[in-house]
Amino acid sequence: MTDALHTPAAVTLTSFRDAMARLGAAVHVVTSDGPGGRAGFTATAVCSVTDSPPTLIVCLNRNASAYPAVVANGVLCVNTLAGGQAGISNTFGGKTPMAERFAAGTWSTLETGAPVLEGAIAHFDCQITERTAVGTHDVLLCQVVAIHSDTAAPGLLYLDRAYHALHGG
Amino acid sequence: MTDALHTPAAVTLTSFRDAMARLGAAVHVVTSDGPGGRAGFTATAVCSVTDSPPTLIVCLNRNASAYPAVVANGVLCVNTLAGGQAGISNTFGGKTPMAERFAAGTWSTLETGAPVLEGAIAHFDCQITERTAVGTHDVLLCQVVAIHSDTAAPGLLYLDRAYHALHGG
Repeated sequence: MTDALHTPAAVTLTSFRDAMARLGAAVHVVTSDGPGGRAGFTATAVCSVTDSPPTLIVCLNRNASAYPAVVANGVLCVNTLAGGQAGISNTFGGKTPMAERFAAGTWSTLETGAPVLEGAIAHFDCQITERTAVGTHDVLLCQVVAIHSDTAAPGLLYLDRAYHALHGG
Repeated sequence: MTDALHTPAAVTLTSFRDAMARLGAAVHVVTSDGPGGRAGFTATAVCSVTDSPPTLIVCLNRNASAYPAVVANGVLCVNTLAGGQAGISNTFGGKTPMAERFAAGTWSTLETGAPVLEGAIAHFDCQITERTAVGTHDVLLCQVVAIHSDTAAPGLLYLDRAYHALHGG
């Protein structure tokens, strides 16, 4: 089932990561607050499932420092970053303690109480309605209960292991 | 739980779609072949779940013309488009009959027999391992069984309802 155009390779971690690096994606800071405390992490593995009802998927590593709080709180906000927000992406994507992460931004809330990042180009405030383990990660089904978007700023994209500010329109 | 920075809006179809338009995403032609016949559709709702084992999520509308074939075949290939492939994205995203869609590209196969598009910048050839209905769509868990990527060409991104060729690196 193969031909001369493509050399099939065993699917190694390296080949999977190299191919995923070619898949450009928006960058998000995903936040949560509630009985489990305030927590947040950087994610590109976010996608829309359906608009009836408005639902996103967010994938979260069960070893992530934010994981216990997100699960305990049962809510999250997807803050889609603007072109100028690579710095806060790095802060929430690293080993920085939670309190220091949140010191890097200005926050408000919408409906659930999950932190809403000022300057992000879209905010999806969500109730987590289902959680399914797949390998190392949990797939979170997130129903959007409040929403906000800004039409002006460029988006922050991640492609080939580098940030890019992309102007739409 | 709201403040002056953000005016919460009811989550309408329009507000959800407007906010999702701000979320830049790679564009893929997802294909399938087997007992259900050859079929394909354009998708941006693709994301990586875990690399252990290498797994993607693909979201597919149950009303899509490709749906019955994809389900019957149990395999698919995610072809991540290059910057110059907006034309084939439109062909696979519209009402074009399947035979005409495939006439718009050159195809090979990897392991599963799902069509592999020449010129795409990454190919994820997958077995569908799980299928879950969420609203109008099915969430397909797809285990990657063969992979191919090309490091040279820019990627095709969709942001603010328009195509953009994005150079990485």
